[in-house]
Amino acid sequence: MKARVTVTLKPSVLDPQGKAIEGALRSLGVPHVTSVRQGKIFEMEIEGDDRVAAAEAAKAAADKLLANTVIENYRIEVSG
Amino acid sequence: MKARVTVTLKPSVLDPQGKAIEGALRSLGVPHVTSVRQGKIFEMEIEGDDRVAAAEAAKAAADKLLANTVIENYRIEVSG
Repeated sequence: MKARVTVTLKPSVLDPQGKAIEGALRSLGVPHVTSVRQGKIFEMEIEGDDRVAAAEAAKAAADKLLANTVIENYRIEVSG
Repeated sequence: MKARVTVTLKPSVLDPQGKAIEGALRSLGVPHVTSVRQGKIFEMEIEGDDRVAAAEAAKAAADKLLANTVIENYRIEVSG
């Protein structure tokens, strides 16, 4: 199974890197972009055919290592 | 409109950070994870209601700034 964990800053947390990207896009002449927020994505291969077990492994990985749940949200998608 | 740009390393490019995460997950006792690759995600707000224009702005941002197309692939999703 494949699992994808997407980690994004909580909406209340400032994202200076996103702000820098906004400024850079303006300088580069990319129009109409009013806000940018950056996150991380982790694509995992998980052994076995059990969707539920794969989601559990991905959740354990996110909670223990991939996300700082004080300032970040994560979501998990599992696919065959 | 919202656009999401997901940037991932090309499959042929080594991902030492992903390898480090694999090792750390093993040490932490998260089972069955055989491979991890890390990428970046950019969530953008784009002015206007034109889906095509939003996709074009996101593509320009990815090509000019967000992705290094020598070693990275990107994909774009636009939503209302």
